[in-house]
Amino acid sequence: MATILVIGASGQIGKQATGKLLEAGHKVIAPVRSPEKLEDIQSDNLTVKKQNLEEDFSEHFNGVDSVVFTAGSSGNTGADKTLLIDLWAARNAVNYAKDANINQFIMVSSIGAGDPDGVDSAIKPYLVAKHMADEHLKNSNIPHVILRPGTLLNEPGTHLVTTDMPDNKDDAVIPREDVATAIVECVSRSTNDNSVTYLFKGETPISQLFA
Amino acid sequence: MATILVIGASGQIGKQATGKLLEAGHKVIAPVRSPEKLEDIQSDNLTVKKQNLEEDFSEHFNGVDSVVFTAGSSGNTGADKTLLIDLWAARNAVNYAKDANINQFIMVSSIGAGDPDGVDSAIKPYLVAKHMADEHLKNSNIPHVILRPGTLLNEPGTHLVTTDMPDNKDDAVIPREDVATAIVECVSRSTNDNSVTYLFKGETPISQLFA
Repeated sequence: MATILVIGASGQIGKQATGKLLEAGHKVIAPVRSPEKLEDIQSDNLTVKKQNLEEDFSEHFNGVDSVVFTAGSSGNTGADKTLLIDLWAARNAVNYAKDANINQFIMVSSIGAGDPDGVDSAIKPYLVAKHMADEHLKNSNIPHVILRPGTLLNEPGTHLVTTDMPDNKDDAVIPREDVATAIVECVSRSTNDNSVTYLFKGETPISQLFA
Repeated sequence: MATILVIGASGQIGKQATGKLLEAGHKVIAPVRSPEKLEDIQSDNLTVKKQNLEEDFSEHFNGVDSVVFTAGSSGNTGADKTLLIDLWAARNAVNYAKDANINQFIMVSSIGAGDPDGVDSAIKPYLVAKHMADEHLKNSNIPHVILRPGTLLNEPGTHLVTTDMPDNKDDAVIPREDVATAIVECVSRSTNDNSVTYLFKGETPISQLFA
């Protein structure tokens, strides 16, 4: 059993990851702006703390085995919040993790974050923020995994994925639940090979991805 | 005589820097979105090119001795443009400069960019962008100078500055013309000591700053 700090635990991926981490027997620390969003998860292993990620949140990193950053992972917030949360809170999380000698940092990034110039759409500013956050993690020397899921779906997970970019852009999708499952796999296997792993619906069991 | 690529040459600092660089005998390449903004500068040593900084602008870096980045340096644009210009165009400029083996990169940054968390105001997202752009330059191994002027004024320059933060925040100001002069000093002296230099109104001649 490990202690996992989930940053963004009230988000759509974060909440599913939190539930699955608890099911897997881990302890979860969840600093969130709106604790009531986690009221329906009942577990002695869950510690919910009220926290605005625009303020100092370094206190939550002590004694933690792994950090999962999945806050604000959406292209739909205003660009000021993209800068303050997707980029700056991620940057701060990396720095706090480094100060606390964390040995596994799992960053939930996004398809397109590797090359924002390859995308000509309203989501580009968001991809710039994610790119720079990913680069900051890569430069940090913290053992990490960067997950880059395709377009996120709210349908139930299939536990079957591929890391290869589909030929057809419309196939570059993945249920949020499968991203949550991938996070739990990374945690349970202590994956920290500094890899960048793309995630799409496919035919490989997630349990084999990080084996 | 050196060839200087000024990115943001139609901006308030950039245009004054361009004029002073030409006066000092340098050649200037000015990729700008609106070439007409530089129509009133007449010089055979000025090459104006139409360029949107949201697109690939790597072509301008060939044969250049120094790069000055002073594009978008304002907290007043929308945060999406802050991400695309202040952060991403700066990041791309650094990468293009690295590919072109540029030996001097002068970044016009901002007071507050060193510690965005120390600022609690609407300008914080802008400072996050500037911070990350500065960090990218620092990590690039390109010889550079980062200038961090205080609040910018439109009054004539005095050529007298200090690099020490004033005790009174209201004194942390500097005419844009003096920032332009500091850029020209850096260029003419080939300053590339990887320093971060704050600039405020003061009593030291700018010509002594980079001696």
